Amino acid sequence: MQGHPYPCRLMQALIKHHAGPGLQLTTRSKPTPGPREVLIRVKKVGICGTDRHIWEWDKWAAGRIPVGIITGHEFVGIIEQVGSAVTNYKPGLRVSAEGHITAWKDFNSRTGNAHIASDTKIIGIDRDGCFAEYVCVPEENVWPVHESIPDKVAAVLDPLGNAVHTVMAANVSAKTVVVTGTGIIGLMSITVAKAAGASRIFATDIDPRRRALAKKLGAVEAFDPRDNAWIGEVRKACKGEGADVLLEMSGAESALSQGLGALRNGGTAALLGLFKGPITFDINSLVIFKGATLLGVNGRKMFETWYQMEELLLSGRLELEEIITHEVPLSEFERGHELMIRGEGIKVVMAVG
Amino acid sequence: MQGHPYPCRLMQALIKHHAGPGLQLTTRSKPTPGPREVLIRVKKVGICGTDRHIWEWDKWAAGRIPVGIITGHEFVGIIEQVGSAVTNYKPGLRVSAEGHITAWKDFNSRTGNAHIASDTKIIGIDRDGCFAEYVCVPEENVWPVHESIPDKVAAVLDPLGNAVHTVMAANVSAKTVVVTGTGIIGLMSITVAKAAGASRIFATDIDPRRRALAKKLGAVEAFDPRDNAWIGEVRKACKGEGADVLLEMSGAESALSQGLGALRNGGTAALLGLFKGPITFDINSLVIFKGATLLGVNGRKMFETWYQMEELLLSGRLELEEIITHEVPLSEFERGHELMIRGEGIKVVMAVG
Amino acid sequence: MQGHPYPCRLMQALIKHHAGPGLQLTTRSKPTPGPREVLIRVKKVGICGTDRHIWEWDKWAAGRIPVGIITGHEFVGIIEQVGSAVTNYKPGLRVSAEGHITAWKDFNSRTGNAHIASDTKIIGIDRDGCFAEYVCVPEENVWPVHESIPDKVAAVLDPLGNAVHTVMAANVSAKTVVVTGTGIIGLMSITVAKAAGASRIFATDIDPRRRALAKKLGAVEAFDPRDNAWIGEVRKACKGEGADVLLEMSGAESALSQGLGALRNGGTAALLGLFKGPITFDINSLVIFKGATLLGVNGRKMFETWYQMEELLLSGRLELEEIITHEVPLSEFERGHELMIRGEGIKVVMAVG
Amino acid sequence: MQGHPYPCRLMQALIKHHAGPGLQLTTRSKPTPGPREVLIRVKKVGICGTDRHIWEWDKWAAGRIPVGIITGHEFVGIIEQVGSAVTNYKPGLRVSAEGHITAWKDFNSRTGNAHIASDTKIIGIDRDGCFAEYVCVPEENVWPVHESIPDKVAAVLDPLGNAVHTVMAANVSAKTVVVTGTGIIGLMSITVAKAAGASRIFATDIDPRRRALAKKLGAVEAFDPRDNAWIGEVRKACKGEGADVLLEMSGAESALSQGLGALRNGGTAALLGLFKGPITFDINSLVIFKGATLLGVNGRKMFETWYQMEELLLSGRLELEEIITHEVPLSEFERGHELMIRGEGIKVVMAVG
Repeated sequence: MQGHPYPCRLMQALIKHHAGPGLQLTTRSKPTPGPREVLIRVKKVGICGTDRHIWEWDKWAAGRIPVGIITGHEFVGIIEQVGSAVTNYKPGLRVSAEGHITAWKDFNSRTGNAHIASDTKIIGIDRDGCFAEYVCVPEENVWPVHESIPDKVAAVLDPLGNAVHTVMAANVSAKTVVVTGTGIIGLMSITVAKAAGASRIFATDIDPRRRALAKKLGAVEAFDPRDNAWIGEVRKACKGEGADVLLEMSGAESALSQGLGALRNGGTAALLGLFKGPITFDINSLVIFKGATLLGVNGRKMFETWYQMEELLLSGRLELEEIITHEVPLSEFERGHELMIRGEGIKVVMAVG
Repeated sequence: MQGHPYPCRLMQALIKHHAGPGLQLTTRSKPTPGPREVLIRVKKVGICGTDRHIWEWDKWAAGRIPVGIITGHEFVGIIEQVGSAVTNYKPGLRVSAEGHITAWKDFNSRTGNAHIASDTKIIGIDRDGCFAEYVCVPEENVWPVHESIPDKVAAVLDPLGNAVHTVMAANVSAKTVVVTGTGIIGLMSITVAKAAGASRIFATDIDPRRRALAKKLGAVEAFDPRDNAWIGEVRKACKGEGADVLLEMSGAESALSQGLGALRNGGTAALLGLFKGPITFDINSLVIFKGATLLGVNGRKMFETWYQMEELLLSGRLELEEIITHEVPLSEFERGHELMIRGEGIKVVMAVG
Repeated sequence: MQGHPYPCRLMQALIKHHAGPGLQLTTRSKPTPGPREVLIRVKKVGICGTDRHIWEWDKWAAGRIPVGIITGHEFVGIIEQVGSAVTNYKPGLRVSAEGHITAWKDFNSRTGNAHIASDTKIIGIDRDGCFAEYVCVPEENVWPVHESIPDKVAAVLDPLGNAVHTVMAANVSAKTVVVTGTGIIGLMSITVAKAAGASRIFATDIDPRRRALAKKLGAVEAFDPRDNAWIGEVRKACKGEGADVLLEMSGAESALSQGLGALRNGGTAALLGLFKGPITFDINSLVIFKGATLLGVNGRKMFETWYQMEELLLSGRLELEEIITHEVPLSEFERGHELMIRGEGIKVVMAVG
Repeated sequence: MQGHPYPCRLMQALIKHHAGPGLQLTTRSKPTPGPREVLIRVKKVGICGTDRHIWEWDKWAAGRIPVGIITGHEFVGIIEQVGSAVTNYKPGLRVSAEGHITAWKDFNSRTGNAHIASDTKIIGIDRDGCFAEYVCVPEENVWPVHESIPDKVAAVLDPLGNAVHTVMAANVSAKTVVVTGTGIIGLMSITVAKAAGASRIFATDIDPRRRALAKKLGAVEAFDPRDNAWIGEVRKACKGEGADVLLEMSGAESALSQGLGALRNGGTAALLGLFKGPITFDINSLVIFKGATLLGVNGRKMFETWYQMEELLLSGRLELEEIITHEVPLSEFERGHELMIRGEGIKVVMAVG
């Protein structure tokens, strides 16, 4: 099961090598799992929008990412070794992992909401990540991957989980849904929402290619939000009153206001997209008078979201072929990141092992 | 819009003419709507399992149904006349109606749960029903039918609503579902649950034709419950722990126990099927230790269920062709009821106007 | 039961007599109930903050209130006459009424959320109100008042219902609660939250008298929000992570940001206070990363809030004596409004009949 | 902090010494914590109804309890030593612990519902318990006790947690509640429900002393269920329709039927009491037509229930003085158990360290 020569002391890893743009493929010591950790031999990884920020070394990255860290947090691999106090897993299992790590001692960790723990550390951001031949994660973070799920999909359960978390938080079953913003996770949300029972989905994006793809994935209509006439069209199509659910995926202030405008009184808005800074909006008419519910969504529920995601994949209704557009070997990491940055790729997967 | 000669004073109606089996097609005065009622010219009606009980004059029917009543409660028609205090509707509108009538003065009626009002009267059971050329219902009970829904389907929104209510009460989105019993509503529940986002559906029925149809409508497997090995198979297929949701549609004591046995700890069971009398079951192991939730389901939520049903129909994902098997003219009501009684038909629709 | 000489054709009424400050006590024709309305002889009324806006004729009032209207929407009275199509009530019953009127035909009205109907008209704002000897409301809006509730309290069920709606929407049972802003409804929220099971309540207000009253009503601590050190104190007192629930009652932008800052990850904020205009806030850190839920709250649920309010009153745990500070006859309406405007009174009740 | 001479190799322990009635106080090796366990020096313990079954060696006990085991599962103590892989706790901390132990690998454990894990082992039943000077539990099971909670109360958080779990599952805030059966947990439920916001509580018990105590703890009325007239009285007092919530604490078949009969349509019943075997009841009229919700309740939510319990204790509204009736030293364990068995004591606490 272990094609890699063993024992070996070194491994290839993609690191943030300096306080500036780019990453470097280099050699690092293979990590040793702590008593409660597992060591995973990485097979495939996904490049996230966050990785793009790290690559470009923007203000957020410069303030958060320690130079020298191994990047990457979306992956699938095989457990190679388990720490001395690990009880639930053995080498040989194909797994992905939740990249948000907590000590399981705060209120949210102890009440089923570890995704919003107050002490969260993220792999590839706060500690070494998965853009390497090996990665260590705590036993609690391991997610065994169902045999029917191909590596290419298993590598991107992290962002797919963002979409699943957002969709399931809003409860879309038999409901009309607006998705504002069809980036990677916005697009994933469309196929997820349809599979999860949304009756009719409306999308917005300024990019006509994304709008076309949104319709291919199941949106009944996709609008250019630069003309806000779409709000009236959606309201009219939805009982004359507005959509039941808004999934805000763009992080654009105008999208939030438009989306809430398209929502019916008493509707639910799940917010995943991050905004560039504080936003200004008419909370009286868009939230209070409307009796609307706004849900902040972060990460993936541990592990309710992962179970839901597995079920949605097993249903055979998720269409991810159009979203995972490219696969490159780790050695071509520069091309992989550039595909993302130039917008040619939607989701780019890198093959590691 | 009114092809029927107007004014006319008489109409054809199917009545329970004596305290014994059968119904009689006869002539009755056309009803006059009260101040808050609408008069509807009936186009098509559905024959319900309840109508079969009334036809057969079983113990329940003999104790509940007043001789002389016009039967039937599933229908679609056109508003012909509105009472003096009616404010929301006008003649000419194509409508169905919720058959459960309340005075809107008790706790449940005033808090969004009129389907379980303490003073409910049902058309075709407690007052004249829709197996006639005309029927009157209170304004509040009217449901305008979306133009895209054909009469044949609009005639059976009442039982379809039972299925939608049960499925939506249990919340099946991204979940595994067991349906015990594939009578009319059990079969409807399968296509409804799939459209509403259930990931995988398992059905049970002793009739192999119904099992075949269950699979055609979307069940991944259909089992003969006389061999309870199916419980283990479902548990194994569902995380090794059991299904997330049980929809009990059979009213069989053994089905409830089996179904709860197939449910995972913490699962939800929605109960629609009526049992023949008090039941005996192991509530400790099947409910309490399991941390299960049991939901009694009755009628259709007014009018949340109706809105959900419309959305599911608009999604284009409901498959009702296989369920609405026959259509006959009102004059052939005997054949219509016999198709139901002999099990040849699943849902039989009668054309009235 | 009817002390008033009957029939009489005229009544006293407090009207918005011109497009400027003040109200005028004058004579009007006694109204005649429509077929579905009841005529109520008013006993006591409450002066609302909205009535203050109408008195002062601010920008909102000038844009919304028709000159000539009878103002007022909080009241208790006796049914004197019922319309021809009224079925559930008879003269002689002591009642209050929900002042939000809908035609019961839109989505929210038909699904248990009539308080956010798209066609709402409000008595005393969009049609004649209750600052008069008689007022008419639709049958559906009537609320029979429990015999144990005194007139003085029954006159202010409308604002008390705002507090109950907000508290119950947030679900405070066994939870820590922050109330930002202790105006009338903020103060009511404190006693309501305590009665509804909140474990510990923290309040903020810039007025030291209000803070003292907040503590008297059950707050464990009341802070001056001009020093934002209170946020850290509340977070520390609440598991070191923040309060479970925020009830935003001030309509101050800073209060919303502070309150959300004091909320734990995964907490719930119910927003009732109306802001002066669009607000600016850091939605990323205060809502999205936090996984917070924001609930817009408007009016009172028809009639779930009213039932909950009755139960809270029957529990004997609501302390309203300190909140209903003054009672004046209708003839002293100027003094009544001035008590409110000068902040001497909290809730002022006027005796009409 | 460690008054006990250390190191010591032996400890006193109360064991099930033979397959028959009674327990034996004997000497055992002090346990050594595993890598992920903590060793706790026990201060006080509570005697549970389950311990009574073990003492009496009834059929359930004979089939479940291994002879030789140390019994007891309710306790408070001080952490004395932590295993090598323990990360969140240090010696010296005063703690209680959740007695239900899971490997945290099944669906419920990984989704916030570890209390209904499929692999649960219970201390004092499946492995050595706390009726001893020392007990070991996994780190994840530890609950740090708030400094304001006295040892006597901290010793009985396990059964108090059963009551809190049941009450909070049913959501009693501003609701009417029926408690059928006022054993230890039934009585606790009354004070918990009141503190959690129940508006009015009705209790039933055949024992007049218990009924008197129920009223002392906050029930507005307590009925003898041998006369089922109480059902009508409760229905009348509760909107003429029945109570909002039933807490079934007796495990009596007749109590379940009566309690559901006293519940309003659409009400919620939380079931904690265990029945002697399969039960027979009229599920059609008591659950399905009623649109009732039945919740199986087991153990305590980890750790939502514990946080809620802490808040309820901090509110100062729980009255436990009347429920924790006796305290004896461990050496008088026979008297302690007999107080329970004879019904003289309600909750008996034993002082160990």
